[in-house]
Amino acid sequence: MTQSDIRPIVAVDLGGTRFRVALFDTVDGPPSRVVRHPSEADQGPEHVIDLIVSAIADIQRTSGQPIFRIGVAAPGPLDPWKGLVFAPPNMPGWDDETPLASILEQRTGIRTVLGNDANLAAVGEHRSGAGKGVKNLVYLTISTGIGGGVIADDKLLLGEHGLAGELGHVTIDPMGPPCNCGGRGHLEAFASGTAIAEVARARLARGDESSITTGDATTTKDIADAARNGDPLAIQIFANAASHLGVGIANFVYCFDPALVILGGAVTNAGDLLFDPIRSWVDELVMPRFRGVPIVRAALGDDAGLYGAAAIARDQGALR
Amino acid sequence: MTQSDIRPIVAVDLGGTRFRVALFDTVDGPPSRVVRHPSEADQGPEHVIDLIVSAIADIQRTSGQPIFRIGVAAPGPLDPWKGLVFAPPNMPGWDDETPLASILEQRTGIRTVLGNDANLAAVGEHRSGAGKGVKNLVYLTISTGIGGGVIADDKLLLGEHGLAGELGHVTIDPMGPPCNCGGRGHLEAFASGTAIAEVARARLARGDESSITTGDATTTKDIADAARNGDPLAIQIFANAASHLGVGIANFVYCFDPALVILGGAVTNAGDLLFDPIRSWVDELVMPRFRGVPIVRAALGDDAGLYGAAAIARDQGALR
Repeated sequence: MTQSDIRPIVAVDLGGTRFRVALFDTVDGPPSRVVRHPSEADQGPEHVIDLIVSAIADIQRTSGQPIFRIGVAAPGPLDPWKGLVFAPPNMPGWDDETPLASILEQRTGIRTVLGNDANLAAVGEHRSGAGKGVKNLVYLTISTGIGGGVIADDKLLLGEHGLAGELGHVTIDPMGPPCNCGGRGHLEAFASGTAIAEVARARLARGDESSITTGDATTTKDIADAARNGDPLAIQIFANAASHLGVGIANFVYCFDPALVILGGAVTNAGDLLFDPIRSWVDELVMPRFRGVPIVRAALGDDAGLYGAAAIARDQGALR
Repeated sequence: MTQSDIRPIVAVDLGGTRFRVALFDTVDGPPSRVVRHPSEADQGPEHVIDLIVSAIADIQRTSGQPIFRIGVAAPGPLDPWKGLVFAPPNMPGWDDETPLASILEQRTGIRTVLGNDANLAAVGEHRSGAGKGVKNLVYLTISTGIGGGVIADDKLLLGEHGLAGELGHVTIDPMGPPCNCGGRGHLEAFASGTAIAEVARARLARGDESSITTGDATTTKDIADAARNGDPLAIQIFANAASHLGVGIANFVYCFDPALVILGGAVTNAGDLLFDPIRSWVDELVMPRFRGVPIVRAALGDDAGLYGAAAIARDQGALR
């Protein structure tokens, strides 16, 4: 380990409603500081970038040493090698290709590395979370949408354009419900938090009996709570989402032959309600030689992307 | 390149009805000799192994130099690191785990490396065929069954147990037809040669009009010929298989982000009848950033597995 390896890293996790900035002083260890900011995305890209630059400057001042590099996790698809963000759907006014890494580099004077947020969460869990020491793993984050990341032979699988691991958009059933991306029957369209809440609203609207209350406020948490209290509709809705996740994960087991599958994101707060049926489905769906892959909950929660951003900044800064 | 790199390799491609043995004198170049033998699999594993050993000795005698290594392509799933074949379904009497690589090594005195036949065909196309110079590709062989292999960053994707790239068994439609493996709605159950011929037989049996003749002899080639001559049933059957291949390949594009998709195996003799609709489906199914991946026909035909076996024997002999 050289001197430069232990210089601090600033990690940024950029989302449509908020972004977070963290200071990592150690290799693969926890951040010494995490600060949350509103993205104010409706005020356009220049404003968002100003906020990020200012947040980086603030956290930099709390560090005793000069910052080595900046790692940024942003919503994909994006180009991790060129550091380009492609017009994020939940951030209006951004160009088709915004050179976010170069812009931050110019504004801060610090080498900056960019990656897809779900990919980087996979890296974070692999380095410092539930996948520590595991060479081959598949990570899924199940929240508003479904994102993924694959670690193959201890390396993030990037593919030709850095777009690999777009696991929320594999087709589970060609006749399934429409997906946000314009497709149909994708894993995200069946099992994201958005999809689960939508099914609940539709079933309530058609008059199904349930302890869940109707209305837009129905969240995955409400439905999970109701299921745990024995509500038959809520139980059915989770069983349905789990069966589709089972089909998707069985496919990923055939594609990637992982030693571990890690599930993160808000929907996994449902716990065994989701994990037990998913485990049964996957082992029922795959051939004997592929059975028994552990399916576990992510360990780093919302911080996984920050850990991953710090890790690629430290390792892969040389890529650009 | 060292002296040992250019010593000849013997490659074996083992199947249920026949096996082939080839002599490779150059790195990634074509074999100087390929010999085909019946497997006589009904006479049990000892007999099959005797035939292979004797075929290796025969081809070895035609070589001017001592053989460097032996590479064997065998039906998966298998363990490429330990050189174990797992009771091939079309070869009766084999143990659950037969240490084929060690047995051949003991019998021949030559270091032997084993790999999944579809995986090795991917390696062959990558080194010497349609995928030469391409860093990231997905290969599918579509014949009796459907097998796959993935090259990621110039390396064969093996996964934790060497089982990665089992692409014929991803689920395309959970309510689809039964698959040979016991599953349901897998890509192989929709689009293998077996599946295509089965659909034809079922449609003819229910009285659909067609120029295809009924009976067990209906092959993919007959159906492709009929489609080219304008037979509406044959056209429909191919369109259907292509649509399911489109769903599968779109999923693989999302999973692996390949620069190229290569399709091999007997069914691809149907040519544009299959490739044109597959290309349209994939580009319709994926998000804009993922469109335009070339989908091309394999270049090495039945020899792809031999090329791949020779390549891994040369490179990866050190693995064991």
